[in-house]
Amino acid sequence: MEKKLELLKKALPGRVYERPAERYLYAYDATPIPIKRELPAAVVFPESAQEVKKLVEVCYEEEIPLFPRGAGTGLTGGAVPTDGRGVVVSFERMTGLTVRPEDGLAVAEPGVITEKLQKEAERYGLFYPPDPSSYKYSTLGGNVAENAGGPRCLKYGTTRDYVLELETVIKEGELLKTGGPVIKDVAGYDLTRLLVGSEGTLGLFTRITVKLIPKPPARLTLLALFDDLASMGKAVTRLLSGGVFPSALEFMDRDAIRAVKQFKPLELPEVEALLLVELDGWPAALKQEALLAEKLLKEEGARVRRASNAKESEELWLARKSLGPALGRIKSGKINEDVVLPRSAIAEALPLFKEVGRKYGLEVVVFGHVGDGNLHVNLLYEKEDPEQERRAEEAVNEVFEIALSFNGSITGEHGVGLTKKAFLGRQLGPEGLALLKGVKRLFDPKNLFNPGKLLD
Amino acid sequence: MEKKLELLKKALPGRVYERPAERYLYAYDATPIPIKRELPAAVVFPESAQEVKKLVEVCYEEEIPLFPRGAGTGLTGGAVPTDGRGVVVSFERMTGLTVRPEDGLAVAEPGVITEKLQKEAERYGLFYPPDPSSYKYSTLGGNVAENAGGPRCLKYGTTRDYVLELETVIKEGELLKTGGPVIKDVAGYDLTRLLVGSEGTLGLFTRITVKLIPKPPARLTLLALFDDLASMGKAVTRLLSGGVFPSALEFMDRDAIRAVKQFKPLELPEVEALLLVELDGWPAALKQEALLAEKLLKEEGARVRRASNAKESEELWLARKSLGPALGRIKSGKINEDVVLPRSAIAEALPLFKEVGRKYGLEVVVFGHVGDGNLHVNLLYEKEDPEQERRAEEAVNEVFEIALSFNGSITGEHGVGLTKKAFLGRQLGPEGLALLKGVKRLFDPKNLFNPGKLLD
Repeated sequence: MEKKLELLKKALPGRVYERPAERYLYAYDATPIPIKRELPAAVVFPESAQEVKKLVEVCYEEEIPLFPRGAGTGLTGGAVPTDGRGVVVSFERMTGLTVRPEDGLAVAEPGVITEKLQKEAERYGLFYPPDPSSYKYSTLGGNVAENAGGPRCLKYGTTRDYVLELETVIKEGELLKTGGPVIKDVAGYDLTRLLVGSEGTLGLFTRITVKLIPKPPARLTLLALFDDLASMGKAVTRLLSGGVFPSALEFMDRDAIRAVKQFKPLELPEVEALLLVELDGWPAALKQEALLAEKLLKEEGARVRRASNAKESEELWLARKSLGPALGRIKSGKINEDVVLPRSAIAEALPLFKEVGRKYGLEVVVFGHVGDGNLHVNLLYEKEDPEQERRAEEAVNEVFEIALSFNGSITGEHGVGLTKKAFLGRQLGPEGLALLKGVKRLFDPKNLFNPGKLLD
Repeated sequence: MEKKLELLKKALPGRVYERPAERYLYAYDATPIPIKRELPAAVVFPESAQEVKKLVEVCYEEEIPLFPRGAGTGLTGGAVPTDGRGVVVSFERMTGLTVRPEDGLAVAEPGVITEKLQKEAERYGLFYPPDPSSYKYSTLGGNVAENAGGPRCLKYGTTRDYVLELETVIKEGELLKTGGPVIKDVAGYDLTRLLVGSEGTLGLFTRITVKLIPKPPARLTLLALFDDLASMGKAVTRLLSGGVFPSALEFMDRDAIRAVKQFKPLELPEVEALLLVELDGWPAALKQEALLAEKLLKEEGARVRRASNAKESEELWLARKSLGPALGRIKSGKINEDVVLPRSAIAEALPLFKEVGRKYGLEVVVFGHVGDGNLHVNLLYEKEDPEQERRAEEAVNEVFEIALSFNGSITGEHGVGLTKKAFLGRQLGPEGLALLKGVKRLFDPKNLFNPGKLLD
């Protein structure tokens, strides 16, 4: 290993760090459950595509595993090193960003923070919609690797829908260019979208070109309260087939509401289900759309409140935004899953998730992007109690089973990483899994890019 | 071959047609230039996924090439049989369609006509945006195979952005399921989008699940006239970064306007460039957005007319919609290319396309989806004159060269098929092309799905 690192340091002087401090700091991500992790042999901070190319050339020659890392905000272990012979590749020094308003796009290096891209785009009246909850810290490279979503994805799609072009270093240090700085392109199989969501297992991104769209001029938020889950489920369908297209449609269950109220003194009645409906568009349209939304929601039995200004709107969102810390107050440990269901199955599946909680003696709190059918099922437990932790990990399996029984997905946002690997084959079937492995071999025949993640 | 066909007929009684009538009828698509085509040995009309599976099992065993076909409206030879030992697979008997409004999706067999899907969705207040100009005839299976676009793709994306789940019969008759009936899904590499746009070369679709979105309640059209191309180009950027998000943004050059006027008595001044701007959304918003659009367009020197009702709107669109037949009146032959450029390059590239026309003594008429940078460059020639035809085919190469010189794409909508194969490597580079071939081998190791298309 010593000799190999010397070769790396020689190829990339000043970029390779072997001190314990860096190796410890870069061995973690935000995954809430215990996962197999190893201290990496070193952390590498490349500063250009050419340096990434050199890095991969040496690693491919010397068979050094590469663990790419954005900001480490991932929740499934995607950025965690799992082999002590490997190096973590941190992109925090690759933060170049150019907005090209005349082309309706931005060209970014992978280390650019998502919020930075959003703000730069806004300076030109443009909009980069993907909004993972980590957007203030997470990097675009990480977002692309995980195909990051967020509340706005109902109307605007996920990261995948904005990536136009990728420059990726693959096997042996090959610099692969896919897509182009154009909005439309059907020349050949879509390798760009194959790379989006590949969780660092196919190569290292060195340049990312994303589409920017016109920024909607205004927003408006409605709060709808329901006395039963079935009505909430029906209301979602009523809105979406009644001509209302929310920019976000967020759901909280009774326990989620209670958790927030314990954390912050909010005037929220403890109902069975709460919907936050955000509309965006032209001010005059918002009024029309809000009137229609209120009518449809009320017809499904909801009590509705409309924010009359930005401040009130923020107050309504406060409940949703306080959920993370609020849950942390209830129990020290939290597994936050992100299963997806066909929309119509939500009302039926919710009690089943609660039943899992009862079975394993855990508190289960559900909220999420209900318009997408993307639910965050949170299993709360005491971290200090290994028995509870074990039960929580067992219970997660049943949460996945429920999602799959409705033809849903084990993950809508967080990716497979280390924590959901065992379930991927269940969702994709042997044919799908075999093809994934075939694709992996095409890009990474030596299995050096993020080995042990997503696939075995 | 006789023996092989007997096996097919035994496996699929009543589905295999060998009469010259069918074999001739199914040997064509809408490609406007002469291409290498062969009479197929037979035409097969499967009626279910199970029959498609059986078909592929026999063909894989007996090494019979399969040429999948939707409605034959493609423009690059994608549906044309190129091997007399092969069979055309027509999906016109697989037209099952179920809209599931409560899930915001539709499940379709590949033979469903695009317009049928659009109309069924509308019955539930839902919207399927992709609108290739062949939408009245083309099938969803063909749309998915080609990743079909259309004018509305600027705001709403292409077919790719709506496909949630595919059931595809691949090598040896394996029934592959990718994606799911859910809006979001990041479990594993995105094989669904790898299959979208694969032009029938990776397998045969048997079921397609697409996302439906709320239908915008109203539309409004503006017509903007420009005295120079540069102003038109700038106006496009001004609109899109000024907060205007058109549902369509179509461009016609001076020669396109002239062609239409010769064909239909329209009150159109012969200016350098014409923009059709379609806005959609809430009626009140349309007024606000139209006012802003008019202001921005005028600031770039345009004269603007606004349709005050649906009838006037249709009249404005008449010019654009008459273009196809209008060009047919000028010359008997037309090569309609669909190159894509970064938006900012349009004004610079347009004179270069005209220059190609002058060089080869051909009339060149340009129109297209300018918001996407997707231009239809039409080379007009006399079909009866082989010398002119040859020149037109040569000139096309220069059109591609121009697109590539601006980092553009050789195709935004029509696909590669037979006619652009020679240029694919130029755009993708050897690394990209090698990966495409690797992907092809994973799905179709015997090269039996649409052989000779897209790749060699």
